Amino acid sequence: MVFLKQLCISSGSVLRRYIQTSSRRQVELTSIRYPGVKRGNYGVVVDNDIATFERLIPGRVLTDSLEGYNTDWLKTCRGASQVVLRPKSTEEVSAILKYCNEKKLAVVPQGGNTGLVGGSVAVFDEIVISTQLMNNIISLDEISGTLVCQAGCVLASIEDYLSEYKLTIPVDLGAKGSCHIGGNVATNAGGVRLLRYGSLHGSVLGLEAVLASGEVVDCLSTLRKDNTGYDLKQLFIGSEGTLGLITAVSLNCPQKPQAVSVAFLGCESFQRVLDIFKESRHKLGEVMSAFEFMDSHSMVVAKENLKLKSPIGDFPFYVLIETSGSNGSHDEEKLSQFLEHVTSSEIVQDGTVATEPTKIQYIWSIRERLAEGLLHDGYCYKYDVSLPLSSFYGLVEAMRERMGNMVTRVIGYGHVGDGNLHLNLTSPEYSSEVMKKIEPFIYDWVADQKGSISAEHGLGFKKKDFIYHSKSKSAVRLMKDIKRTFDPNMILNPYKVLPDL
Amino acid sequence: MVFLKQLCISSGSVLRRYIQTSSRRQVELTSIRYPGVKRGNYGVVVDNDIATFERLIPGRVLTDSLEGYNTDWLKTCRGASQVVLRPKSTEEVSAILKYCNEKKLAVVPQGGNTGLVGGSVAVFDEIVISTQLMNNIISLDEISGTLVCQAGCVLASIEDYLSEYKLTIPVDLGAKGSCHIGGNVATNAGGVRLLRYGSLHGSVLGLEAVLASGEVVDCLSTLRKDNTGYDLKQLFIGSEGTLGLITAVSLNCPQKPQAVSVAFLGCESFQRVLDIFKESRHKLGEVMSAFEFMDSHSMVVAKENLKLKSPIGDFPFYVLIETSGSNGSHDEEKLSQFLEHVTSSEIVQDGTVATEPTKIQYIWSIRERLAEGLLHDGYCYKYDVSLPLSSFYGLVEAMRERMGNMVTRVIGYGHVGDGNLHLNLTSPEYSSEVMKKIEPFIYDWVADQKGSISAEHGLGFKKKDFIYHSKSKSAVRLMKDIKRTFDPNMILNPYKVLPDL
Repeated sequence: MVFLKQLCISSGSVLRRYIQTSSRRQVELTSIRYPGVKRGNYGVVVDNDIATFERLIPGRVLTDSLEGYNTDWLKTCRGASQVVLRPKSTEEVSAILKYCNEKKLAVVPQGGNTGLVGGSVAVFDEIVISTQLMNNIISLDEISGTLVCQAGCVLASIEDYLSEYKLTIPVDLGAKGSCHIGGNVATNAGGVRLLRYGSLHGSVLGLEAVLASGEVVDCLSTLRKDNTGYDLKQLFIGSEGTLGLITAVSLNCPQKPQAVSVAFLGCESFQRVLDIFKESRHKLGEVMSAFEFMDSHSMVVAKENLKLKSPIGDFPFYVLIETSGSNGSHDEEKLSQFLEHVTSSEIVQDGTVATEPTKIQYIWSIRERLAEGLLHDGYCYKYDVSLPLSSFYGLVEAMRERMGNMVTRVIGYGHVGDGNLHLNLTSPEYSSEVMKKIEPFIYDWVADQKGSISAEHGLGFKKKDFIYHSKSKSAVRLMKDIKRTFDPNMILNPYKVLPDL
Repeated sequence: MVFLKQLCISSGSVLRRYIQTSSRRQVELTSIRYPGVKRGNYGVVVDNDIATFERLIPGRVLTDSLEGYNTDWLKTCRGASQVVLRPKSTEEVSAILKYCNEKKLAVVPQGGNTGLVGGSVAVFDEIVISTQLMNNIISLDEISGTLVCQAGCVLASIEDYLSEYKLTIPVDLGAKGSCHIGGNVATNAGGVRLLRYGSLHGSVLGLEAVLASGEVVDCLSTLRKDNTGYDLKQLFIGSEGTLGLITAVSLNCPQKPQAVSVAFLGCESFQRVLDIFKESRHKLGEVMSAFEFMDSHSMVVAKENLKLKSPIGDFPFYVLIETSGSNGSHDEEKLSQFLEHVTSSEIVQDGTVATEPTKIQYIWSIRERLAEGLLHDGYCYKYDVSLPLSSFYGLVEAMRERMGNMVTRVIGYGHVGDGNLHLNLTSPEYSSEVMKKIEPFIYDWVADQKGSISAEHGLGFKKKDFIYHSKSKSAVRLMKDIKRTFDPNMILNPYKVLPDL
């Protein structure tokens, strides 16, 4: 067991750099851009409140230069928080929430602020409670692979830490250099390893959360199995900070693979992408750890906006397959048998395989930096949907046809293995006309196919009103009942996830 | 997609045979054995109710020969239900529950009735709602491996069905010949494949449940990812029929392994079992699909009560390792390298490897039929706990020392890979004196080690009062709030899971 090793936030991450260089652009206030949303009947922070906060967490109450805390990563939402609180412990979070609940002061929990649906910034003047300073590893059991840590640990830092013990973390995503594990759990982050290790609903062994009342709910179990009563932790996973503020998590961490390979393939149609997927499931089986696709329009973004080079020629579609396992030569043999098959049967037109870490990283960066690349166009209308594979790419084509010259581009990429499409449209700046052309058309299209209007990004502020496109009335009614039970004063992350509360 | 193929309950299963041959033994009524439990203020079934049920589900209302529905598999609990209802559809379940809720008639949902904590039979005269006739496959998507079926499908029948499509089911347990998938999900069944495929919280993609009010909650998604609102289905998983009656489930089914091998090993101490586990994680990695252990006292049960032969000599401890993967020769190479290592370093004393299905099945039967074998002794005091590996077998030794000659035997076996110990004590018949010597001592011991008093069996009727040994007061309070929200009249499976409601 290893105790209390402090993790530093990894500096120089791609995301962080982007935020710094583009923060000069002023984003319209959310309350102005969305005039239909009305401020709830919450208290307003006054000097006396600030003094109380200062007493509870001395020196960690910010009231100046809050721009970074008020603006979301996509530069599409801006709140008007007047105060940011940076607790270090669960007890401090508890004391803060108890006070806010008594005074009916609304709060917004914030991790790395890398969310894509406006869920981690204020809509009006909610108080930001940041987990930035809650970044301690609490314990690691090397044999079982159980890690316990505070919510504010940065994902990439945890990965680095586990790496020393030949372990890895079961969740990985583009924002890893900035996002916090607490935020990952609160939003049920998916990412590129879900195909292999499953969702956080399976990997999170336990968590600790503070309710609006300040009461601490201790479900921080380190056991792989525990069937004693309702599995409360599951409710907090994906509730986007509306039921409680997650302060610590316990994770089941798999063995670090001893060998990793990445294949980058080009093919002629989306049907070919599906063919490759089917063959890879059969031939690569348990060593396949990622299956990603991107279209030629995505590659243009990588080349023009990010100055990245494609490792192969030009094709309508690209596939990135990662294998990782305990025996490199076995994995390579499986991969080469698979490649021989898909090449000889002309499913794949061209491809390259990387086994060296820097090359692997370069290929991954083409896929992972697309979200960043899109922001160079100006404004990004971002959609993240689940669809049956039969209609998966049809949505991209339908949107491209519908939007015509109204937008700069329409691109599709994502996690084919999980049925998860990232559909993005860009324009030089936000346009309500473009928005009206996109929504609710896109959600209706997805609902018609029985898809999900948010596969992994959550509903946050921007998508809450479309919940009925993916969930039944009886389900949403139960969610509202649960919200009222957990947070009777509705102070936790208001205007998010559930409509018309 | 394959629609509406009816599954027959597989006949001649081990469990079913056992129930038939031993049903002559009369079990004491639960209300008499546990005089401290008082009947709730529920309605009593009268002729008029029976007539209504007969109108709702004509010909499927049973009022005679209810012994099999009233007695649990272990022969430790007996209810006094006067009526068993056998709906075929969700609509019928809804109509039944709506009526029962209005009349405040308590109900107990029942699947295969193979539970081990008295959760699936009545405590007093609750109405049994059986899922026996809800056994249709609704759909199968072969490419994504998504199965949708009614709750009453028998686990082994689903496995057989999937096998035709080169798919497998992510949950497997000894009771597979009788248990229903709805019951598996309602109790969050673990079993021998959890090590490989994770828990049902990860594998269940969606479910449909009927609330006490009769309202149908449709969360029957077939999507791998869906972050739209709270993940309600998670609450039903493991709630043991106290929040709603699960009527259908959607499961993520993995590819059927192309090659399976089983190694059965003997070693000198429990420390050696842990050494083998550590080495197997490193050397077998992603192809290890089960790691089970049993002690020499378990082997005596297999030999004497079940007339099974050990494939190797006598040792204090035995380990069963299963590998399964997409490439037989790769798996065999990994397994032989691993075995060479553990044998040459004298971690393992003796062992055998099986690759032929009948031999594999025989070895598995030694481990899987232990629960059945124990019943030959008379009464079985059954415990299923999670413990840190450091104190895992210590509990068996502590109990053996404590009980001395008061019991026939104390045996330990289980899923080392998941930290899950099955501890069993037997005596010729039930004795409250023996019980008092075991409980609460055993739960205190587990709580001291921060373990779980129920790893996979659930709390049911027998263990509900010990929930505080594994869950905090604030967590249990929230569970009670949720129960009241979902089932205000408390008609669903009363006297189970939560204490003092």
